[in-house]
Amino acid sequence: MSDTAGKVITCKAAVCWAAGEELKIEDVEVAPPRAHEVRIHILHTGICHTDEYTRSGKDPEGAFPVILGHEGGGVVESVGEGVTNVKVGDHVIPLYTAECRECKFCKSGKTNLCGSVRATQGQGLMPDKSSRFTCKGQSLFHFMGTSTFSQYTVVADVSVVAVNPKAPLDRVCLLGCGITTAWGAVVKQPGIQGSTVAVFGCGAIGLGVIATSSLVKASRVIAVDTNPNKEEWARKFGATEFVNPAKLPEGKKIQDYLIEITDGGLDYTFDCTGNVHVMRAALESCHKGWGVSTIIGVAAAGQEISTRPFQLVTGRTWRGSAFGGVKGRTELPGLVEDYLQGKVKVDEYVTHHRTLAEINAGFHDMHAGDCIRCVVDMS
Amino acid sequence: MSDTAGKVITCKAAVCWAAGEELKIEDVEVAPPRAHEVRIHILHTGICHTDEYTRSGKDPEGAFPVILGHEGGGVVESVGEGVTNVKVGDHVIPLYTAECRECKFCKSGKTNLCGSVRATQGQGLMPDKSSRFTCKGQSLFHFMGTSTFSQYTVVADVSVVAVNPKAPLDRVCLLGCGITTAWGAVVKQPGIQGSTVAVFGCGAIGLGVIATSSLVKASRVIAVDTNPNKEEWARKFGATEFVNPAKLPEGKKIQDYLIEITDGGLDYTFDCTGNVHVMRAALESCHKGWGVSTIIGVAAAGQEISTRPFQLVTGRTWRGSAFGGVKGRTELPGLVEDYLQGKVKVDEYVTHHRTLAEINAGFHDMHAGDCIRCVVDMS
Repeated sequence: MSDTAGKVITCKAAVCWAAGEELKIEDVEVAPPRAHEVRIHILHTGICHTDEYTRSGKDPEGAFPVILGHEGGGVVESVGEGVTNVKVGDHVIPLYTAECRECKFCKSGKTNLCGSVRATQGQGLMPDKSSRFTCKGQSLFHFMGTSTFSQYTVVADVSVVAVNPKAPLDRVCLLGCGITTAWGAVVKQPGIQGSTVAVFGCGAIGLGVIATSSLVKASRVIAVDTNPNKEEWARKFGATEFVNPAKLPEGKKIQDYLIEITDGGLDYTFDCTGNVHVMRAALESCHKGWGVSTIIGVAAAGQEISTRPFQLVTGRTWRGSAFGGVKGRTELPGLVEDYLQGKVKVDEYVTHHRTLAEINAGFHDMHAGDCIRCVVDMS
Repeated sequence: MSDTAGKVITCKAAVCWAAGEELKIEDVEVAPPRAHEVRIHILHTGICHTDEYTRSGKDPEGAFPVILGHEGGGVVESVGEGVTNVKVGDHVIPLYTAECRECKFCKSGKTNLCGSVRATQGQGLMPDKSSRFTCKGQSLFHFMGTSTFSQYTVVADVSVVAVNPKAPLDRVCLLGCGITTAWGAVVKQPGIQGSTVAVFGCGAIGLGVIATSSLVKASRVIAVDTNPNKEEWARKFGATEFVNPAKLPEGKKIQDYLIEITDGGLDYTFDCTGNVHVMRAALESCHKGWGVSTIIGVAAAGQEISTRPFQLVTGRTWRGSAFGGVKGRTELPGLVEDYLQGKVKVDEYVTHHRTLAEINAGFHDMHAGDCIRCVVDMS
C-alpha cells in the first residue's frame, strides 16, 4: 500500500462552485476509498463538451459545487475493502458507464448501460450517497462517477478498469469518453463494411466515427460539417468526401443533397453534434428500406427530435448509443491494445495541451474551431 | 383464355368521385391488361382505414375520381403479354407492395419496399402512366396499385400473387393488408419469443400483432386501448393483460404505468393506432438499453413524431414497418398455407359482411367500436 492509503489526501482540483462560473483551482481534501471504492491519482484528463454543458448551467441535473471531468487516466493510489478488479499501482481509466456484471442490464447481454451505480452517480454522489471531496469545509459533488479534474479522485470499483501500463496516459485518457464512444458506435453495428456512411459533425466524436468507419471498410464515408476547416481533418481521419451544408444552393436541404449523391440515401448515418435539427437530417438522409441513423451527440435538456413517422414506416431505423455501447471493464483493455498496435487512432485527436492551472483556457480552446481534444496535465 | 380476354369489361365498381364524398356504385369500363399486367375478377375485398383516409380527403396525395380498395381476393380473368407469374383462373391476392425481384430494393435482401412500380402507383396510374378504368367517359385513377372496389381490376404482374385455391377468398382477401402487416411486423423481428410486448390499439392490426406475439410465445402481451370493449377481443387473440389508458389515475402517463408493471419497460412495443402521441408513448414504454418500438399505424399527413433524443441514446430503437416487411409474392402463399393449417387466425377478424351496394355502410361499420373487419361481397 502507498503511504497515503487510509488517509485524507489534500491536492489540487478544478472546482466549479456554481453553474456558469469558471473553474477555480482549489486545495481539496479527498477522503480514502470506502468498501468497493478506488482512489486514483489522476495524471491526465481530456475536456469534453459534456463537462462544458454542466459547467455552463444548461444541464438541469447539474449539482454544484462540483468537480467535473470524465475523460481521465491515472494510477491507483489505494483501494477500499473488497476491491478485486484493480490494485495499487495499476494504470487505470475511470468509467462513467459502470460495469458491475451483476445487474439486469449487465446480464442482459443487450446493453452496456449498467444500472448498479446510476442513481447515485446521477446525484453526484458515491454509491453510499456521500461525497469524498471537501473544500473549505464544504462537501463537493462528484460528476459522472469520475471527477477527473482533481489530482486524486475516488470512484466505485465497477467504474474503473486497468489497462496496459505501456500505454501513455496522456493519450489513452481520451478512451474514457469520446474516442471509445465513436469506436463502439461503429463496430457494434454489423453491416458497415462495404456500406455508405455519413457523419454529421467533425468534432472528436465525429472524427472517431469517420476513422472507425474507414477502419471497418465502409465503401463511402461522407463527412458533414459547416466549418470548412474540418474538411482537412475529416479526410485525414478517412472521410472519402466532405459536404458543407452551408454551401449548398439556397433552400437545398442537406438530407435531399445526400440522397441525391448516394442514389437514394445512406446505409448508416451518425449524429455527432447534439443538435436536434441535425439529428433529424441524419435520419432523413438514410436510405429507404434499410438506413439506420444513430444519435451519439447529447442534446440540451428539453430539446426534442421530430420527424414524420413515414420516415420510419418506410424502413429507416432511429437509434442511439451511449459510450458507444462499450462495456468499459470488458472492452477498454483490448481497445488500448489496439491503440498500442496502431489499429486505433488516439494521438491524432490531441491538438491542445494545458496544465491544470490553465484548465479554463482549455474550455475556451474547445470552442475554437481548431481544437479537437485538449489534454490537461494534472501534475 | 376467357371469352372476355382482350376486350373491355363493363362491371360494377364503387367510385369515389371527389375527396370527402361517399362512394357511388357505377358501371365502369375496365380495359384489357397490357404487357406485364393482370386483369382480376375481384370476388371479395376488405375495407381498411387507409381507404377511408384517402376517401375522406385527408390524404394530400389522393387523386380523384378513384376506385379505392387494397385488401382483395379474386381470380385471374386474363393476362397481358409477358406475364409468367400468374395465369388465367389462378386465385390471387393483389399486392399494394409489389415485388419485382429485380430492383435495388428487392435485391438488397433488407426490405420489402420494391421500387419497381412505386412512382406510378403513387400517382394512381399503371406503370405506363395510364389508367385502365373509365366511367362516363372519364378516366378514373387506380389506388395503391390494386383498386379492389371494382368487380374487375387491372394490376401490374409484380403486384399480384397466386395462392392455394382451397383458401376461401372471402377470408384470405384480408391477407392483402392488415393481418399480413401485423404478422410480418412480429415474425420479422427476432427475439420476441420469451420477451414482453405491448400493443397500442386493438383494431385489426393490433389484434394481429397480439395474435402473432402469442404465436411466437412472447412472455407477456399487454394490450392497450381506450375502448373497454376491446379487452375481450384482445384476450381472445392472446393478450395476457389489458390496460385502458383512460382509466389510469389522473396525470398518470401510460408509458410510466407500463414501465412500473414491467420492471423497467417493455422489450417490444407496437403502435397500431396511427396516432403520433401514441407512437411516442409506445417508444417511451420501452425498456432502457434494448427496447424496440415499431410503428405500424399510418399517421395523417403532416403529423410528426417527437421524443427526447435521450430516449434513443439510452438504448431504445424506433423503427417502422410497411406491409409487415413481407415480400408478397414470396411469402403470401406460405401464409395462406399457415391459415389453412390453422396456424394463423383470419376468420376471427371478420365481424361484418356487406354487399358492394352497401359499401358505404361498410365504411361506417369501421367507425363503430365493434367492427374489426368488414368483408365486401363483390358479386
